[in-house]
Amino acid sequence: MSMKGISVLLLLQLSCYFSPGNCGKVLVWPTEYSHWLNMKTILDELVQRGHEVTVLASSASILIGPNQSSAIKFEIYPTSLTKEDFLLFFRRILDRWIYDLHKDTVWAYFSVMQEIFVEYSEFTEKLCKEVIFNKKLMTKLQQSRFDIVFSDPVIPCGRPTTLSELMGKAEMWLIRTYWDIEFPRPHLPHFEFVGGLHCKPAKPLPKEMEEFAQSSKENGIVVFTLGSMVSNMTEEMTNVIASALAQIPQKVIWKFDGKKPDTLGTNTRLYKWIPQNDLLGHPKTKAFITHGGTNGIYEAIYHGIPMVGIPLFADQPDNIARMKAKGAAVSLDFNKMSSSDLLNALKTVINDPLYKKNAMKLSRIHHDQPMKPLDRAIFWIEFVMRHKGAKHLRPASYDLNWFQYHSLDVIGFLLACVATAIFVITKCCLFCCQKFAKTGKREKRE
Amino acid sequence: MSMKGISVLLLLQLSCYFSPGNCGKVLVWPTEYSHWLNMKTILDELVQRGHEVTVLASSASILIGPNQSSAIKFEIYPTSLTKEDFLLFFRRILDRWIYDLHKDTVWAYFSVMQEIFVEYSEFTEKLCKEVIFNKKLMTKLQQSRFDIVFSDPVIPCGRPTTLSELMGKAEMWLIRTYWDIEFPRPHLPHFEFVGGLHCKPAKPLPKEMEEFAQSSKENGIVVFTLGSMVSNMTEEMTNVIASALAQIPQKVIWKFDGKKPDTLGTNTRLYKWIPQNDLLGHPKTKAFITHGGTNGIYEAIYHGIPMVGIPLFADQPDNIARMKAKGAAVSLDFNKMSSSDLLNALKTVINDPLYKKNAMKLSRIHHDQPMKPLDRAIFWIEFVMRHKGAKHLRPASYDLNWFQYHSLDVIGFLLACVATAIFVITKCCLFCCQKFAKTGKREKRE
Repeated sequence: MSMKGISVLLLLQLSCYFSPGNCGKVLVWPTEYSHWLNMKTILDELVQRGHEVTVLASSASILIGPNQSSAIKFEIYPTSLTKEDFLLFFRRILDRWIYDLHKDTVWAYFSVMQEIFVEYSEFTEKLCKEVIFNKKLMTKLQQSRFDIVFSDPVIPCGRPTTLSELMGKAEMWLIRTYWDIEFPRPHLPHFEFVGGLHCKPAKPLPKEMEEFAQSSKENGIVVFTLGSMVSNMTEEMTNVIASALAQIPQKVIWKFDGKKPDTLGTNTRLYKWIPQNDLLGHPKTKAFITHGGTNGIYEAIYHGIPMVGIPLFADQPDNIARMKAKGAAVSLDFNKMSSSDLLNALKTVINDPLYKKNAMKLSRIHHDQPMKPLDRAIFWIEFVMRHKGAKHLRPASYDLNWFQYHSLDVIGFLLACVATAIFVITKCCLFCCQKFAKTGKREKRE
Repeated sequence: MSMKGISVLLLLQLSCYFSPGNCGKVLVWPTEYSHWLNMKTILDELVQRGHEVTVLASSASILIGPNQSSAIKFEIYPTSLTKEDFLLFFRRILDRWIYDLHKDTVWAYFSVMQEIFVEYSEFTEKLCKEVIFNKKLMTKLQQSRFDIVFSDPVIPCGRPTTLSELMGKAEMWLIRTYWDIEFPRPHLPHFEFVGGLHCKPAKPLPKEMEEFAQSSKENGIVVFTLGSMVSNMTEEMTNVIASALAQIPQKVIWKFDGKKPDTLGTNTRLYKWIPQNDLLGHPKTKAFITHGGTNGIYEAIYHGIPMVGIPLFADQPDNIARMKAKGAAVSLDFNKMSSSDLLNALKTVINDPLYKKNAMKLSRIHHDQPMKPLDRAIFWIEFVMRHKGAKHLRPASYDLNWFQYHSLDVIGFLLACVATAIFVITKCCLFCCQKFAKTGKREKRE
């Protein structure tokens, strides 16, 4: 699966029964961390509109689980793994991706990448099997007569099947980007680009944080986070970062959960958790230091904030490369950056007005859509439930095998025709030549 | 230009000035007949929303011109042609297309098609030149500082240029179809499918027509029209049609402006003009006999009416073929159909419930969109004015020449690399062999 595969959501249609009250039953196959935060926005909206939403979650889930403020139902299935296994698995995969992947040779890169993917697919297969072979759970799900399966395909799981078969069954794809991040390219009618659906206007900051932000005066503040999955960094690295931050006139709000760096400046405050969207929407915010996760990038685009990207894994290098190409970010290499690299990058995005201008341009593109991304996502989920699918948007290519898809059958037939014609013509010529030669000889003899 | 080119509208951006009151100045380059009827729906809506709309129309226009009920402005430019020239030109082109194109051989078909296109392009070039070389008009247009050009590219005209250059300058394409008529296929982000934007709920019929419709009782009525461009038919053909219509239990409302056919049944009434949309939305309507123009087909889809298609020219055979493939129409050949063909086709679409079912399915797809087609069309016109273009949706392929587009430069470079490598390796091998041979000889001698 390509990097982009990570940032898509998949809708599968089950044999379904649709209740007449315009309310459907939705079964959800989610993925952890930022994927869940994004998906939950859609699920909360579905629940708000009266749909019954059931999320399949393992007994070892990290973020996915019941919450007092939401009417989302959870079907918890037992797994032989513990929550610690989950955390360790993600930590191991990420550490390898972040620190081991930066090899000097292409072969070493692909070798590490292969090992990561093998470990990842063994883990997800184990999880999938524990669901599929849980007869009690399967019977319960079948009896529940869901109208739709809403699935994050980053952990694919299904009916004995292949990945391409499973993906081909999706009636509708909700893509977690839009033409602000994407470059214009052809796409299919059952793709809906709903990037930034979780974005919303900023709420007021906590009192202490607001006072800190205001104390920055005209210099403004910088927001810094490396996302929900990364918490441990080497002490050396935190000092490299802290010493760069100490040298800028802005105040810095840094989401960091570890040992306080020795080089931390008085302008920098550490927080275990930050209200990221409210900070990015704050009028004092001048720049965003980000690992380049889709959610954070979209919040920055929504509020028009230029970025310093320190991509770590998965689609993050790709996301930051796009922001850089669109002139709204400077990119740094996590494993190679020095204090002055970070300092210069920050100075550039804050002081060169072009970065703010480009970030605002992306923001205008993002805001000026015919319909909000969340409303479009909900529309197409409800459409699939209402019409028991979206067959009119499904390309016929899904029903072709590989040689039909590449027209090899047609090309083969045409080549066979040409070959036959050449063969027949050659035979005819040879026959005529022989006949002519014989007649010639006979005439000569006579 | 392909058949589909006829059913698209083009937006070009001029060097523009956009007034702060959210109201723009729109310059329109229209085309006659059904294209104008469709475009006028958008222009009326733009005027309603406070935009200033100026239509470039020739002094010989047929349908395009001022109307008391609309605030659309018209800039009439003088042409050496008369309205009669225009009418004769279209009549000649259509007669050739309808009657002469049905040749037995492929070569005859293409020969006639080529003649039609040559005549068409000479006519449109003449018209275009009379606009472009009209200095007074050009100065006036330039001084008017329009925000946008809204153009129907079926008569392309522009700044010395080629068709592909002119088309490549469009910021946004409004395609006059949707996924009810289209089969799912890849498309670009600056394509917006706004087919059926002119459709609306039916208004009550004129009293006499309503009484006639009601007199059909449970049998219902059939609506028959061959569009705005065809009025003359051979007497033989009208009798073939009339005698078929006379044999069905339904009442027939036929838009026809010619000699009353001898075989006309008492169930059939002729009208010089009919309120097509109101008739198709009438509860008594069972079927629609149509030439397959996009506007009529969309009105039938909007109201869920099965069709008998008698395609005549341009994209009509293609449109009817799609409706046939989707099970909502039976197709007839205008030049070959007999009375019984038409009778059987009518019986099929009226009595086989599958046709009504499929027409209703298309209708549901058409109605169940996140946003109405007219609103989407207006949104993107206003977007191009607001943002002085829609560059974020424009694929980079427009800026490539043909060999870059097909990656021939990349392929060429790679082939050159391979060739160089083969050359170097061969030379090295030869050199080594020679050296080895010489050494061998010397050793032998010694």
